[in-house]
Amino acid sequence: MILFNCDYLEGAHEEILKRLAETNLQQEIGYGEDSFCEHARELIRAQVKDSDAYVQFIAGGTQTNMILLSSMLRSHEGVIAADTGHIAVHESGAIEATGHKVITLPNTEGKITAAQVEAYAAAHYADDTHEHMVKPQVVFISFPSEVGTIYSKSELRALRKVCDRYGMYLYLDGARLGYGLMSEACDVKLSDIYRLTDAFYIGGTKQGALLGEAAVIRNTALRKEFRYILKQRGGMTAKGRILGIQFEVLFDGKGKDCLYFRLSDHADRLAAKFRDGLSALSVPMYQESFTNQQFPVLPDKVLKKLSKDYSYAYWGRVDETHSAVRFCMSWATKEENVDKLLKAIEKLLK
Amino acid sequence: MILFNCDYLEGAHEEILKRLAETNLQQEIGYGEDSFCEHARELIRAQVKDSDAYVQFIAGGTQTNMILLSSMLRSHEGVIAADTGHIAVHESGAIEATGHKVITLPNTEGKITAAQVEAYAAAHYADDTHEHMVKPQVVFISFPSEVGTIYSKSELRALRKVCDRYGMYLYLDGARLGYGLMSEACDVKLSDIYRLTDAFYIGGTKQGALLGEAAVIRNTALRKEFRYILKQRGGMTAKGRILGIQFEVLFDGKGKDCLYFRLSDHADRLAAKFRDGLSALSVPMYQESFTNQQFPVLPDKVLKKLSKDYSYAYWGRVDETHSAVRFCMSWATKEENVDKLLKAIEKLLK
Amino acid sequence: MILFNCDYLEGAHEEILKRLAETNLQQEIGYGEDSFCEHARELIRAQVKDSDAYVQFIAGGTQTNMILLSSMLRSHEGVIAADTGHIAVHESGAIEATGHKVITLPNTEGKITAAQVEAYAAAHYADDTHEHMVKPQVVFISFPSEVGTIYSKSELRALRKVCDRYGMYLYLDGARLGYGLMSEACDVKLSDIYRLTDAFYIGGTKQGALLGEAAVIRNTALRKEFRYILKQRGGMTAKGRILGIQFEVLFDGKGKDCLYFRLSDHADRLAAKFRDGLSALSVPMYQESFTNQQFPVLPDKVLKKLSKDYSYAYWGRVDETHSAVRFCMSWATKEENVDKLLKAIEKLLK
Amino acid sequence: MILFNCDYLEGAHEEILKRLAETNLQQEIGYGEDSFCEHARELIRAQVKDSDAYVQFIAGGTQTNMILLSSMLRSHEGVIAADTGHIAVHESGAIEATGHKVITLPNTEGKITAAQVEAYAAAHYADDTHEHMVKPQVVFISFPSEVGTIYSKSELRALRKVCDRYGMYLYLDGARLGYGLMSEACDVKLSDIYRLTDAFYIGGTKQGALLGEAAVIRNTALRKEFRYILKQRGGMTAKGRILGIQFEVLFDGKGKDCLYFRLSDHADRLAAKFRDGLSALSVPMYQESFTNQQFPVLPDKVLKKLSKDYSYAYWGRVDETHSAVRFCMSWATKEENVDKLLKAIEKLLK
Repeated sequence: MILFNCDYLEGAHEEILKRLAETNLQQEIGYGEDSFCEHARELIRAQVKDSDAYVQFIAGGTQTNMILLSSMLRSHEGVIAADTGHIAVHESGAIEATGHKVITLPNTEGKITAAQVEAYAAAHYADDTHEHMVKPQVVFISFPSEVGTIYSKSELRALRKVCDRYGMYLYLDGARLGYGLMSEACDVKLSDIYRLTDAFYIGGTKQGALLGEAAVIRNTALRKEFRYILKQRGGMTAKGRILGIQFEVLFDGKGKDCLYFRLSDHADRLAAKFRDGLSALSVPMYQESFTNQQFPVLPDKVLKKLSKDYSYAYWGRVDETHSAVRFCMSWATKEENVDKLLKAIEKLLK
Repeated sequence: MILFNCDYLEGAHEEILKRLAETNLQQEIGYGEDSFCEHARELIRAQVKDSDAYVQFIAGGTQTNMILLSSMLRSHEGVIAADTGHIAVHESGAIEATGHKVITLPNTEGKITAAQVEAYAAAHYADDTHEHMVKPQVVFISFPSEVGTIYSKSELRALRKVCDRYGMYLYLDGARLGYGLMSEACDVKLSDIYRLTDAFYIGGTKQGALLGEAAVIRNTALRKEFRYILKQRGGMTAKGRILGIQFEVLFDGKGKDCLYFRLSDHADRLAAKFRDGLSALSVPMYQESFTNQQFPVLPDKVLKKLSKDYSYAYWGRVDETHSAVRFCMSWATKEENVDKLLKAIEKLLK
Repeated sequence: MILFNCDYLEGAHEEILKRLAETNLQQEIGYGEDSFCEHARELIRAQVKDSDAYVQFIAGGTQTNMILLSSMLRSHEGVIAADTGHIAVHESGAIEATGHKVITLPNTEGKITAAQVEAYAAAHYADDTHEHMVKPQVVFISFPSEVGTIYSKSELRALRKVCDRYGMYLYLDGARLGYGLMSEACDVKLSDIYRLTDAFYIGGTKQGALLGEAAVIRNTALRKEFRYILKQRGGMTAKGRILGIQFEVLFDGKGKDCLYFRLSDHADRLAAKFRDGLSALSVPMYQESFTNQQFPVLPDKVLKKLSKDYSYAYWGRVDETHSAVRFCMSWATKEENVDKLLKAIEKLLK
Repeated sequence: MILFNCDYLEGAHEEILKRLAETNLQQEIGYGEDSFCEHARELIRAQVKDSDAYVQFIAGGTQTNMILLSSMLRSHEGVIAADTGHIAVHESGAIEATGHKVITLPNTEGKITAAQVEAYAAAHYADDTHEHMVKPQVVFISFPSEVGTIYSKSELRALRKVCDRYGMYLYLDGARLGYGLMSEACDVKLSDIYRLTDAFYIGGTKQGALLGEAAVIRNTALRKEFRYILKQRGGMTAKGRILGIQFEVLFDGKGKDCLYFRLSDHADRLAAKFRDGLSALSVPMYQESFTNQQFPVLPDKVLKKLSKDYSYAYWGRVDETHSAVRFCMSWATKEENVDKLLKAIEKLLK
């Protein structure tokens, strides 16, 4: 059985394990103030081209979204997201549990546009009774989106502009940030993400780490007393070192010449190979994606048989006899397994 | 510089790192439903002598307290704790952030008694206006307490009784559970803890793991839909395997013949040695402790000089020239360092 | 200037003021346990045909929704509502502020159907990852809806059935309950509402009282310790008597022979007259309504001129030159003013 | 039976009822933006000597505390209060339900001192791990306190100073503000309260109104978007007029020449008479009070007999045969009833 259902099926890149072992008995203070975290922060600051960038490491993605968003919001404020946004669907109401509404806008291929956000904010303030509604204060986007699409630089700029116009923050969920940045369709760099958002996170869990995300806050107003909130929401890891060490290994290098981007590129490359292979078999895609997640539409019969040897995530019914499914490539995916998968699909389609 | 200021200064026991490496590329499903977590659950069930015990692994201690306690409480209910209790002091208001009051009772050596709890609950229900006050619904205790003391079996039984009388839950924070259970002063076993509480957690972070706590719920009513809340509060680790693997390594063995208890015993033994050494030097203790934390009272002058080579946690002023400080021994403490520390203190006291 | 923009433009029915004055210096205990509240409870119990019905009086509608819904929900649970539902739009995120998601379903004329709810719940539990999503636990409906429509008995029965099937509660917001129950299109009675829901409230503020809503809870499990929550959320009025007295006056009588229903009927009758008058003028309705709110579509030019002498609520743009607006009749509306309004519209339309 | 157990036993002053009746059918817009609220605001602005003072009317006291305090706090911040403070004891955890800790300091006669607050704040920031504790951000005081005592001008100034030093807000609960300000022992005016606090409220419910409190915010930063929060927490009364009208009647006049202060004075005067009468009978006081609440210590036997004809609130046991109880005078108390009460006590003491 070969698993393709998600991108967190294995442990961590071996370099990370090696480094954890090497540094294991070195004594370090806790709570993210150790030398490893400090060094990892420096490496990330170099990537985002701001030697003053504020970085904290947090164990998981839902936690990171919850902590960052709740730190940005007063009680009457909410966050705008695509109706497919992770915080709107798959975090069990984590944002609402901190007291805030997730205001959903209809997505287009997993994304929302500046025009949509503008229209929503404009309508809010134009309404005489706007104090009876949740004030939109943050715009949440995922990069890549939950269906593997990515925002272009001009789309991000437009979102930035509308956020500035209405005094809103722009927040970016980068659970799969590397897979997005290394996509052949991508025209932005990590430093652009930093510059155009108020805060975002660099995903580690789905990108080669055991666990851990790097929250990066550009807006200085949002840094104030952040660590109180980090602690309060359970996000301050006692042995912060284990997060710092991992990001140190992932970002050791200049620009895209570091493990993080190499692993991302590996997954994107295999995803492209898989996409091309399916295309050659005339398999339609539910959603075009140039990142590590691919969403082919296959006959239910084929899927049933395929599932004996390969796992995938069920995505949605297309017609009576076809379904869309998701296959994920990751930093750990072996090329030979992609080849096997393609051959298996080819055989079943005959 | 040798650090003694806390018990999470190093990484993890080498057996854990070894096992993480061995299993690294094995593909496993996420969110705590992998085979490692399942096996670790089995090992813990054997320890608590209930093949049906409900176990979930959570990354950190504050998170575990917040998730378990908030899952037990309706909005008008609160949790009783010692005024020195971790949730009352050092979790940045994590419980209040979930909407619940921490009701504090004055501690005696870090503990509260059944009589205190009884008096509080009785007074609550005797008051005609009790609906105007927070309903006490959970009793929170730490084992060992924040100052290293432990509850005896008869104390735990008495707390259980008063909880039953008033329909309250008994919850135990076991961040340093092993150090408590292996103490020479301890007369309870892990299975007693399980039987006498409604829920508790077995600390991993301070006991040899990289990170991770095992939440154990005995009361079946409290298990219902728990995983929704685990996810919502950011406590469902995507690669749950990394928590499962660690507890698998720690609890591989029968009864106290497993790594978890061996490491705990090591720390307690060194703490006893340190305590005896101080006693021989006529150093008074701020608080008698038979677990891994020791709280000597030392002259400020001595402390100042000592701090050049050894770290400790400042605990409180005793008089104009003396302070209480905390030294922690852990699974990773080297006996030679304890010897050095004792000699350094001896020298400075002369 | 004559105002029609909402149904809370005047004080209270004169009988209420008279009774407040008569009883003013009678000493009574506080917090809703006075003799007036007790008597009002009895009158409401007679209406819902359950001598054991649980009734609490609360000052306002948003407060009542917030208190009742939050009392029904554990932290991972949410409430399903129409996307036009008051809690989803016009309560500034009051439900989210208590930690719970409002799950919206697309409305049809302000209502949601049992089939929609069934589909949502079924999909939730069919999804392997449902623990990653908010658990639907309450279905919220407004009666009449925010656009004046009402649920039929068979629609309510179907909702009851699907709630029972999935262990969900059915909650009904009755801010304008009387206007709904007295509608010519209505086939349910107050006792049906009671029997078919788990809890609901009888609106006073928009129905002739100075302020105040009567929360009625049928489901005995939901009554437990309710008054703690009432107090905690700021809903326990110190001088509860002023709410009790008002509901006493409103429900003094048998069945529909009481002030509450007479006032409701008055408003519905004037609304029908207004609707018929507009129909005679061939004015189209944005939304057909048989309750006290009417939603005609009028030329913007007409509206502009009309607004010099009459107020209405703007509802939405229909085309470049026409808008939908809302006119409300209430217990206090004078028939002569409705006649004047119709004549003014007629004149402007020429 | 004559009731003295609290100060909200009757309806409202007759002038209020008269004015409600006179204005009853005047149409007014809702949500506190009507002409009565505007006028009442002007009257209060004159009292606090700031023509720009921000005023909102809210139905109840717990609600007012909850709304004002939660609007002042970010998630990691808490409020310091006396351990006898209303928010710490008798609001069913309302503040915690909004996510914030109430940090208690030991009271002296119901009050806390600037020195206590200073010591707490200083210790907080001196602690290296302060991010692990709730940040003290607001100081809550009651004026008069829950046991009838009042802060002097110099005490308020000292509190203001320490709040400024640590960037904290000073908030004053004025549920019985008039009874405090008219006390013979009081050296502050309403305008002093305004100037020395960031926000406070003028109690109406216990001071002659049917219900209602006037929240007054001096600090301009705290006014921003306040009405969203007012709505969200259920504090925006649809018919705001009924609150405005009441404060209009209460504050119609210049300085202390208005109904509010005349009624307060009436109660304080009767309380002084009662105190003097008890003193003549050599009845000791549990707590010296110069406001409307009096706390005599009486033999249990006397209390038992007295309770057949007079109600009081039980306050606490003093010794085996004596208890402290509370008698409240109010705007509505009849002097003849105080005379009767004194005679009854005199008779029973013989």
